[in-house]
Amino acid sequence: MESLEFPISAGQLGLRLGAEVVGDSALELSRLSSIESAEGGTLTYVSDKRFLPRLGDLSGVALLTTADMVRSELPLTFLVVADPKKTFSGIAQSFQRRPREEGISPQAFVHPQALLGASVGIGANSFIGRGARIGRGTSIGPNCYVGEGVTLGEDCLLYPRVTLLEGVTIGSRALIFPGVVVGSDGFGFIPGKDGENPTEVPQVGTVVIEDDVRIGANSTIDRATLGETRIGRGTKIDNLVHVGHNVTVGPRSFLCAQVGIAGSVEIGPDCMLGGQAGISDHVRLGKGVKVGAAAAVFSSFGDDETLFMNPALPARKAMGAIKYLRRLPEIWERLKALEERLGRQS
Amino acid sequence: MESLEFPISAGQLGLRLGAEVVGDSALELSRLSSIESAEGGTLTYVSDKRFLPRLGDLSGVALLTTADMVRSELPLTFLVVADPKKTFSGIAQSFQRRPREEGISPQAFVHPQALLGASVGIGANSFIGRGARIGRGTSIGPNCYVGEGVTLGEDCLLYPRVTLLEGVTIGSRALIFPGVVVGSDGFGFIPGKDGENPTEVPQVGTVVIEDDVRIGANSTIDRATLGETRIGRGTKIDNLVHVGHNVTVGPRSFLCAQVGIAGSVEIGPDCMLGGQAGISDHVRLGKGVKVGAAAAVFSSFGDDETLFMNPALPARKAMGAIKYLRRLPEIWERLKALEERLGRQS
Amino acid sequence: MESLEFPISAGQLGLRLGAEVVGDSALELSRLSSIESAEGGTLTYVSDKRFLPRLGDLSGVALLTTADMVRSELPLTFLVVADPKKTFSGIAQSFQRRPREEGISPQAFVHPQALLGASVGIGANSFIGRGARIGRGTSIGPNCYVGEGVTLGEDCLLYPRVTLLEGVTIGSRALIFPGVVVGSDGFGFIPGKDGENPTEVPQVGTVVIEDDVRIGANSTIDRATLGETRIGRGTKIDNLVHVGHNVTVGPRSFLCAQVGIAGSVEIGPDCMLGGQAGISDHVRLGKGVKVGAAAAVFSSFGDDETLFMNPALPARKAMGAIKYLRRLPEIWERLKALEERLGRQS
Repeated sequence: MESLEFPISAGQLGLRLGAEVVGDSALELSRLSSIESAEGGTLTYVSDKRFLPRLGDLSGVALLTTADMVRSELPLTFLVVADPKKTFSGIAQSFQRRPREEGISPQAFVHPQALLGASVGIGANSFIGRGARIGRGTSIGPNCYVGEGVTLGEDCLLYPRVTLLEGVTIGSRALIFPGVVVGSDGFGFIPGKDGENPTEVPQVGTVVIEDDVRIGANSTIDRATLGETRIGRGTKIDNLVHVGHNVTVGPRSFLCAQVGIAGSVEIGPDCMLGGQAGISDHVRLGKGVKVGAAAAVFSSFGDDETLFMNPALPARKAMGAIKYLRRLPEIWERLKALEERLGRQS
Repeated sequence: MESLEFPISAGQLGLRLGAEVVGDSALELSRLSSIESAEGGTLTYVSDKRFLPRLGDLSGVALLTTADMVRSELPLTFLVVADPKKTFSGIAQSFQRRPREEGISPQAFVHPQALLGASVGIGANSFIGRGARIGRGTSIGPNCYVGEGVTLGEDCLLYPRVTLLEGVTIGSRALIFPGVVVGSDGFGFIPGKDGENPTEVPQVGTVVIEDDVRIGANSTIDRATLGETRIGRGTKIDNLVHVGHNVTVGPRSFLCAQVGIAGSVEIGPDCMLGGQAGISDHVRLGKGVKVGAAAAVFSSFGDDETLFMNPALPARKAMGAIKYLRRLPEIWERLKALEERLGRQS
Repeated sequence: MESLEFPISAGQLGLRLGAEVVGDSALELSRLSSIESAEGGTLTYVSDKRFLPRLGDLSGVALLTTADMVRSELPLTFLVVADPKKTFSGIAQSFQRRPREEGISPQAFVHPQALLGASVGIGANSFIGRGARIGRGTSIGPNCYVGEGVTLGEDCLLYPRVTLLEGVTIGSRALIFPGVVVGSDGFGFIPGKDGENPTEVPQVGTVVIEDDVRIGANSTIDRATLGETRIGRGTKIDNLVHVGHNVTVGPRSFLCAQVGIAGSVEIGPDCMLGGQAGISDHVRLGKGVKVGAAAAVFSSFGDDETLFMNPALPARKAMGAIKYLRRLPEIWERLKALEERLGRQS
């Protein structure tokens, strides 16, 4: 959709969207809101019937919605679309402001042997090392560090203060938030004997991040000891996530905030890891596995499993354990009562 | 209190504090210490009777203390005050060195359409975007990024390497440590169908941080999808904390290190979340709720609740569960023994 | 070992290592690999007999191994050494590329009262404060901040974007990854009364990091309230770790990713804390304690203990609890069945 600007009338918006308008076409819309905080002049959406009672509290609001949720008796304007959330997201994109760099800042350092595609932007105080290759249309914010031999695809957006260390490869359309570090050393040591310090296992592998990956603020992705750490295409990583050496994740997986993935883990396609979930080293998770928030996974699981708890169990078992955990004192008392009765009996 | 310098005699310090001096007024003090590491010539404080036995081991130490803890038979100097910890803190402030910037570094970039109050300091290699407004007396360290349209109040202190993204609002007297990111995108996606990549839900809301907030090193606070993420006044955030989109916290709450708060959570005033605690999305916690370290909260709780465990339970239930958890093998054995006896009996 | 370059023949490599060569000495080697991804022309190592079956799948591979694992009937080249993993690590070091700075960048700021040893390198846009002392051979990457009065030992490597705040002390041969913050304030407050904001307890202590310490990306180490936070020599810290104020760790301890250590904790020598483990404030752990991943330790333990679970228990107790946790629904049912039988009996 072409970029949109407020104010716009509900009728004009309906035309732009090809949406049927039920209610006041002249209603002027001046901002987006969620259904919870909708008020006169806002555009919002409803895609879940549990929000229908909320509609009675509103007036002068335009709602993107499916045909079955139209309530023409209410003082509201309905814009009927097939997928309200998706349409709303498309509109919201017009209002998203992202800091893109235009041209190469004279305060940036770009090594003469770096290769830059067309329309690359590089912010002040950023460093682009020898042999780095930056694809066309990629924007690198201020205070970034792109190490020697790094490859960055096309149309990436690096926010300020991103660090990509030597030799890592990032696909196209990457979205990388501030403070991210890609390519730090994996954590591997040979313990010392008799009070000697441990010695490092050199980490000489790399990181490969496929297309359309998003990495949240202050997350870290370690390089492999040998070979590569790989983030599959379309995988979305939230803030403060740790991905250890030699891990494979994705494609199309979600790692919520503060997830930690230890070394050599393999996570299949279409997985979803809740916030603060942890995966122990060498664990394998199949396709479509869901791991609950704050769960800790110490063994491998196959496709489509749902896991909860620390240590993690399949959902049904976990739910059973959780249900009776809080009744443990009662179990104890009832067990003692039985023993006493039996003591009396025998 | 006027700034204080060592060395100072116990008598002079008593005069400055308006404190009664019991013991050697001429004792010269040259540094601060905790009671555990106090030695000749140090100033410390005691506010808890359990440290009284420690006093017998010391000599030549000055102690801030309340009248009831004076032990005049010991070779110590007592300075009698109403609130020893508070007085000690006040003195310690004289010795706190913070890196404040004086003036605008010629190596900083300040957009001509940014508005700076009086006595603003900006360090080298920092970036201040278009339309940013910085209140008087605020100091911004080197290598910071203050995006377009950001509002920063008065007398804030930004350590080096802080990132405030587009349009966020920070109140007065904020204290923000290195590596903090405010205004990164919330984590919201529409899953793709049939192997398509997920598409992002645009995050077009903002972050509002009220007055007197402190944000620890490398913490991240996401902008709202729509509307705002809000940190209430006087809230104190430790290191490596994640606050998701559309969260409301505070006022006057404490988030200890590595706390994770998922999207749309509401945390009331005067709450205290222990280190590594996690709060699941859409959970509401009332006023004065305490969440233990490493607890994971999956449902809402009212005022003054204390929660422990993963998944979190109210304290009494949690303590019961924890008590018998370690006795589960014994419960199992005793249950089997009963079954065997009954088997024999029936 | 002198630095090594590929390609090299197995025979030449054997000579360099003083290793007996069994198999094709002319085999040309062009890269390192793990045993799992070994293929023709790679050099790998085997130190564990469980990988022996894998050897049957390979040809044209050179293996560093001990004498007892040589299988001369296979189309492989064996290089016999005493400690294959250690020898392999030594070779891998030749291929490790680290971004070392040569000389002082004209874009760095170095305070005239800072003291730099011989052969110090400082990258662009880095800041070295008044009174800082940097030992010979230390390299500081771009966009670092070394505050007033910081002491850094010899032959340290600071990656880009490291922040060392006022007055902290770092030993020799430190390896510090991007985004690390050392010397941020400890988290201590005096709560306000009647809705007043909490007031900060000034943090006027420091951080001392002994020799040969490694700190992973985006980790944070807080300064002490009074006295010092101390990381013992040879301690290795992974990414996104939090170390609170007045903590003592080490020497030779391992803190895996996302570990959190609250204030005033003491962790003895040779400890190993798994990923996401948390240690509650004032806890003491003795020598050689192992804490499992995602365990939460709320009380002190002596030497050589192994701890699992949240809340943490000694290994044997934890394993018992975990074993029967998943059988809680069954325990419940069997307990009820007993009660019913006894009800019928009495």
